[in-house]
Amino acid sequence: MQALFNLNVTALAGGVGAARFLRGLIRVVNPSRLSIIVNTGDDEEFFGLHVSPDLDTITYTLAGAIDQNKGWGLAKESFRCLEALGRYYAETWFGLGDADLATHLFRTQQLRQGKTLSEVTAAIARAWELRATVLPMSNDPVRTIVHTEAGALPFQHYFVKGRSEGHVQKVEFRGISAASVAPGVREAIRGADLIVLPPSNPVVSIGPILALPGIREELQATPAPIVAVSPLVAGRPVKGPADHLLRGLSVEVSVVGVARLYLDFLDSFVIDTQDANQRARLEKLGLQVITTDTIMSDVDKSVALARVVVEHKHEKRRRVHE
Amino acid sequence: MQALFNLNVTALAGGVGAARFLRGLIRVVNPSRLSIIVNTGDDEEFFGLHVSPDLDTITYTLAGAIDQNKGWGLAKESFRCLEALGRYYAETWFGLGDADLATHLFRTQQLRQGKTLSEVTAAIARAWELRATVLPMSNDPVRTIVHTEAGALPFQHYFVKGRSEGHVQKVEFRGISAASVAPGVREAIRGADLIVLPPSNPVVSIGPILALPGIREELQATPAPIVAVSPLVAGRPVKGPADHLLRGLSVEVSVVGVARLYLDFLDSFVIDTQDANQRARLEKLGLQVITTDTIMSDVDKSVALARVVVEHKHEKRRRVHE
Repeated sequence: MQALFNLNVTALAGGVGAARFLRGLIRVVNPSRLSIIVNTGDDEEFFGLHVSPDLDTITYTLAGAIDQNKGWGLAKESFRCLEALGRYYAETWFGLGDADLATHLFRTQQLRQGKTLSEVTAAIARAWELRATVLPMSNDPVRTIVHTEAGALPFQHYFVKGRSEGHVQKVEFRGISAASVAPGVREAIRGADLIVLPPSNPVVSIGPILALPGIREELQATPAPIVAVSPLVAGRPVKGPADHLLRGLSVEVSVVGVARLYLDFLDSFVIDTQDANQRARLEKLGLQVITTDTIMSDVDKSVALARVVVEHKHEKRRRVHE
Repeated sequence: MQALFNLNVTALAGGVGAARFLRGLIRVVNPSRLSIIVNTGDDEEFFGLHVSPDLDTITYTLAGAIDQNKGWGLAKESFRCLEALGRYYAETWFGLGDADLATHLFRTQQLRQGKTLSEVTAAIARAWELRATVLPMSNDPVRTIVHTEAGALPFQHYFVKGRSEGHVQKVEFRGISAASVAPGVREAIRGADLIVLPPSNPVVSIGPILALPGIREELQATPAPIVAVSPLVAGRPVKGPADHLLRGLSVEVSVVGVARLYLDFLDSFVIDTQDANQRARLEKLGLQVITTDTIMSDVDKSVALARVVVEHKHEKRRRVHE
């Protein structure tokens, strides 16, 4: 246990699935040695406020303040302001709670005063007394746009308003080529003893982080083992539209399909026992495969999964340099 | 009654006292012929939001949505967001309710998109289905600063946070000389058959409107009678710090002191029966004096007072041109 406690762990995270995993991880490793690089491609402006759904989900979860049932937003939340916004706006489909609004107000005001998203994220983490380090992937605007036959929709519009309907033709990370990695992100990867990809949507949660110039190279270069936890169970997403998005990108909707997206840097892949029939295919790709129960229906299950991920003796794959 | 119904009435208004009067006035005259020019000197930015306390008090009151007990804010309001803001900000003394926040969010977003305060105020009035026209006095920033021995405080800081403590040395309307009258304000004065100054703080509510370049000249030039209702009853303000402010400006704290501030344009002055002993002094100033019950403890009393103001046959004073 002492050894685990001294590990520097870095995670690449989206929202709900990653947060469920991280609530376990902070109970297994030393949270003050944990850095979490968070997707900001889902960020959106609502009612003039800068909303960072994944950053907030991670922060609220680590603070123990998340609505456990929904997986996002604050527990015991009310929606009086959102209801009142209906008087002024035609569209109020994004669930902004009254207490949650305080975070968006603070973030927006600080950004307007010239602070970076990194600085504001750190201030929010301090306000919630987090010990882990939460890092936005970038301080530059990156917007995930989902193209369907109905047109190009920002992710929240596709996912929340549009309920992930429509055939996905393309996923675009607008602004990505001009975006820089945020301060601390490279250092978190370089200083890690273990890098984890919790179960997040590979296309729209992990995808934008990997698409940032320089990130894949950092992951390919690190001597630390890199472990991913599959977001698919029995070949289907536990939650969310990963299947629609994978299919849209012509990626096989299976743990093998997901693994291929990470193959240039991944060492180990943790899959659910329900997907054990894919083990041979994954091993053929050169991956170490760990099968376990990955459905995190309560905190104990999150802890158990985190323990499997961290305690395993991961070996660094010998990789052919491309 | 038909005659009253066809009157064009224009009011110069602050917040709570004016709103109490106007809730009566809209039941006596045709509200679609009523224009209300509202003080914006108390406007303040809280948490990055543009808050216009007097505009909101007037709008919510005319919409029948005001918290009747407090006289400001919305009825059945909750304060979940404000409470949550305490996590990020040291100071949360200004009472921003959850439903009320929707108005500030909308106003702030619209202003940031380049709309004028006039345009946003009109949009808010439409959203509340008001028939009366609510006009900010100016689209330019004017800030009422109260100077006490403790320093220079923006009005809300002096009044709400500081509870009107400290000896007032000076009241400054910062930005006033560069501020223009908002669209519709001049027209509302010129087109009025009757101009009313409801019972508002003469220094910080009516004061900024009168200090706007051109407004006193418009009031001096209009052929319409101008009637003020005293904000003092028995020589004291019904609510608020008018006595401190008048004293600070070396103005007699009495209906006579208030009347003198308006003497260059005022025709009639409505005072409370408790101040009837001042009638002779007021008449000596050349004013028509009407004594009645001015305490508006319920809507019926507001209607009764509005009726006295509107039904009186006001005569235009013969004024010596200065």
